[in-house]
Amino acid sequence: MQLFYGYKEGDRVMLSEDESKHAVKVLRKSVGDELNVFDGKGNLYTGRIIDNHPKHCGITLDKVEENWGALPYSFHLAIAPTKNMDRLEWLVEKAVEIGISRITPLLCEHSERKVLKPARLERILLSATKQSLKGTLPQLDELTPFKEFIQQQNATPTFIGYCGEGTKTPLHMKMREHGSSVCVMIGPEGDFSPTEFEAALKAGIQGITLGDQRMRTETAGLAAVHTAHLVHISQ
Amino acid sequence: MQLFYGYKEGDRVMLSEDESKHAVKVLRKSVGDELNVFDGKGNLYTGRIIDNHPKHCGITLDKVEENWGALPYSFHLAIAPTKNMDRLEWLVEKAVEIGISRITPLLCEHSERKVLKPARLERILLSATKQSLKGTLPQLDELTPFKEFIQQQNATPTFIGYCGEGTKTPLHMKMREHGSSVCVMIGPEGDFSPTEFEAALKAGIQGITLGDQRMRTETAGLAAVHTAHLVHISQ
Repeated sequence: MQLFYGYKEGDRVMLSEDESKHAVKVLRKSVGDELNVFDGKGNLYTGRIIDNHPKHCGITLDKVEENWGALPYSFHLAIAPTKNMDRLEWLVEKAVEIGISRITPLLCEHSERKVLKPARLERILLSATKQSLKGTLPQLDELTPFKEFIQQQNATPTFIGYCGEGTKTPLHMKMREHGSSVCVMIGPEGDFSPTEFEAALKAGIQGITLGDQRMRTETAGLAAVHTAHLVHISQ
Repeated sequence: MQLFYGYKEGDRVMLSEDESKHAVKVLRKSVGDELNVFDGKGNLYTGRIIDNHPKHCGITLDKVEENWGALPYSFHLAIAPTKNMDRLEWLVEKAVEIGISRITPLLCEHSERKVLKPARLERILLSATKQSLKGTLPQLDELTPFKEFIQQQNATPTFIGYCGEGTKTPLHMKMREHGSSVCVMIGPEGDFSPTEFEAALKAGIQGITLGDQRMRTETAGLAAVHTAHLVHISQ
């Protein structure tokens, strides 16, 4: 299914500026052609082009499907961006394909990357969401300092992956207990610092392990995403 | 741990040519320095440099650890290489980190990539094996035609991922039954053809699914690798 990104406006559905250009200029869609448009909030609209404007293409609202392509659970990954952006971008694409609701880039003691430009990640989020036919665009937060983040995590069951010393349970066991709607924190290349791990435990966050394989940050992040998926489909 | 790749030769351990150059020229290792050398077959040698030759650096064999960093199961992934090589190279790196024993690139009806140069993939295999401290270098086969491959698969329990119609069981359920020492086949961007799927079933290969998420070829490949890992650590 060919999918476009847009939003409902009164009795019409408008394509975003980029998507209008893509539909009208690249794919040469014209008045009367039927399009499928999703709003990233779970609505899938179907209608015909009434205005093939290359910047704001409008279609009729003939049909709406609610809760379309919704992830059956809500998984939140909080991860320290890798020094090499390609690795983070790769993770974002794959995480969307497997299923994720929210990504929080973390700023940690050992973080090598201390600034993050969201624009490119947002484009990857959108294209991966379209490509894998997900109805909801995952939320991408701003780069959040570790201490700030752990104080916010009182609603969702939250787990922290850590390679150092300490009490840790395999993530899949924790998920069997709590379900897949949880938050998992993954540290930077140098891992979380012992101080950070201690602070997380004090904040009620539980230590987890992804097994004894040594994985890169982005691999560990994806392993957590896939664990949530697998535990969900096994239940 | 800093790890070098080499081989035992009589009462000595020799570093490969690339590794000799890296140790001697880049890291400036010299006679008397202690090195850890793995042979990719499960042996970890420790000794001191007796000849810091930049092309064939030799060390004494002071200690050998057998079955070092061995994968506790043997997982075989047979996958159609993606059109874009970066995606395949990414998969190879991640698969090694999580754990894999053998990779067979498959040539399928819908394959867009019909040739494969192994040199670069072999370098990625080696560096990922070192980086993730695995003792055994996974086997990389030549690009194998689909029909030829399915005829070889009579020893290992083999499963084929397919998005089209047909009887399919979730991979993790099959692995709970057979363990993680299995072979999983993943098709190209256009999936296996119905004819290929039928031929596989006739050859005694069983249809599996990775869940109803729409994943790219390389994402499905990694999901299979991680399923093997997760089923293994949950048992």
